[in-house]
Amino acid sequence: MKPTIKDVAKKANVSISTVSRVINQKGYVHEDTRVIIDKAIKDLGFVPNQLARSLTNRSSKIIAVIVPHIGPYFYGELLESIESQAQANGYKIMFFNVQDDPERELEYIKFFEQYNIEGIIIASNFQNASKLDEMKVPIITVDHILDENIPSITADSVKAGELAARRLIQGGSKNLAIFRGPSFLMTTKERTLGFKKEIKSHNIHAEIFDFDLVNPDAKLIEQVLRANPQIDGIFAYSDTLALVISSILKKLGRRIPEDVQIIGYDNTPFCSWINPPLTTIAQPISLLGKQAFLNLTRLIRGVELPTLHEVMDVELIERNSTK
Amino acid sequence: MKPTIKDVAKKANVSISTVSRVINQKGYVHEDTRVIIDKAIKDLGFVPNQLARSLTNRSSKIIAVIVPHIGPYFYGELLESIESQAQANGYKIMFFNVQDDPERELEYIKFFEQYNIEGIIIASNFQNASKLDEMKVPIITVDHILDENIPSITADSVKAGELAARRLIQGGSKNLAIFRGPSFLMTTKERTLGFKKEIKSHNIHAEIFDFDLVNPDAKLIEQVLRANPQIDGIFAYSDTLALVISSILKKLGRRIPEDVQIIGYDNTPFCSWINPPLTTIAQPISLLGKQAFLNLTRLIRGVELPTLHEVMDVELIERNSTK
Repeated sequence: MKPTIKDVAKKANVSISTVSRVINQKGYVHEDTRVIIDKAIKDLGFVPNQLARSLTNRSSKIIAVIVPHIGPYFYGELLESIESQAQANGYKIMFFNVQDDPERELEYIKFFEQYNIEGIIIASNFQNASKLDEMKVPIITVDHILDENIPSITADSVKAGELAARRLIQGGSKNLAIFRGPSFLMTTKERTLGFKKEIKSHNIHAEIFDFDLVNPDAKLIEQVLRANPQIDGIFAYSDTLALVISSILKKLGRRIPEDVQIIGYDNTPFCSWINPPLTTIAQPISLLGKQAFLNLTRLIRGVELPTLHEVMDVELIERNSTK
Repeated sequence: MKPTIKDVAKKANVSISTVSRVINQKGYVHEDTRVIIDKAIKDLGFVPNQLARSLTNRSSKIIAVIVPHIGPYFYGELLESIESQAQANGYKIMFFNVQDDPERELEYIKFFEQYNIEGIIIASNFQNASKLDEMKVPIITVDHILDENIPSITADSVKAGELAARRLIQGGSKNLAIFRGPSFLMTTKERTLGFKKEIKSHNIHAEIFDFDLVNPDAKLIEQVLRANPQIDGIFAYSDTLALVISSILKKLGRRIPEDVQIIGYDNTPFCSWINPPLTTIAQPISLLGKQAFLNLTRLIRGVELPTLHEVMDVELIERNSTK
């Protein structure tokens, strides 16, 4: 049997509430009594139940992280960086995989209230955004802005679009194409906006095609590439998508970058090792996670954030899929 | 202010303990009283505090999952499959990233006791394995066997080694090499064992080189390949490592599979899209996660497992990096 607070009280010959005051470091306890209780706790190997303590203290030291997937590189890196920052600050992480299901979101919201979760980091396109207003705990969104009143950390997707367009034009491409992800995502919209803005100033047009970024439909990509042989510059919204496109282009006898330039997104580790190595956009994924955690704990402590919506810089990583 | 159990008791004109009996579905409450209390709960929008309930019920509906990393494909897939199975069964997941740090392991063990975690899935090479004996909750290990008394789910790494060796020999390789991960890992040992067993029966020898599977040292790999030009068949213990090796071999002017055959490990999605597409070993990652969760909940319910150490089958996926 695990020793209980009762056993400690009995051994120390004091009341349960006195033991509780010592455990929770609240209220007056005579120093001699404290020493006796500490000894009893140690002798019995008593572990205070954190659940009971968090009920009293309203502090669970747990934060929730909501992601739409775990598999893709972006989310793995993000979770790893949040968890490592949390660990350094004495917090634990519960993660929830919503899989774009609004029902699951609602279930989780209920759970967060029941468990005194101290704060929430949302890295998914949360569909019940209006429900978040009612939450009693701080929330930070990452990679999304769900509500102008909910603080966010995002990467500069507009700039990413501009950088990609400028690089493809600089390499001589005249017939551009965007192979993008779901058009309802803010990141998709902003990357497209930046790209279009840049090409407009050069009087160049771009075709836009929508794909699944995680499991791209290779047959559909091949159809698009066969039907549009004029395309000589492609901006793909994930490195995986760019890799599939490259593979199909090669099969169609087109050379990269001589015939078609390609720029990917994410700077996934495999970019350096594929043939040709992939020029891509790098987001500061680890910094996004770290900053999200830091800002969340600021809000938990009641500290105001200097910026409600923080935007992090992105970078074009030059490799050999551009001229 | 959030409504409390007190508010419910006041509104329903009953004692707090009566409300508690209704919430926890324990003990007798007259049906009429139950209806009144249910209405008060609904009218006030009261949410029972799960922390308090789990104190009473000793059931937190939370399980912990310990992983050494999140980034690599294997762990992302594994976490996703455990989480989705947990969700379907009303459980929530807390995940912990030990980063091979024994200190963090000890801290987590303490945390699990404090929070009434109901069970633990360990997918890392837990260094404080002896401490696990003292844990009061069920434990399952995945991808590792830490103790003969702790139930485990693993893939058949010995067979994986055999399959790889047989395929390289069948393709005509005479000078084999293993590019493996940390030699202290059980999976590394077993793959090597199976590989050696198979080549021994063909009187073929293999050189063994140790690398970091997640961030392979490309310079070191190049040195090894330059110093051993006789190598014509390679078994790499991760697809990422195989990809880096392929890239360096091409740089050295060697053709795959004509001059050197390569087999990877994990069946990462990029295998189909690199040049040449990579022959690899597929583990049933999603099934490993699902079965680990199912067996853990069996143990939580006190049901005996049919097999203490369950071994799942592996498969050789043929692509074009073998002849």
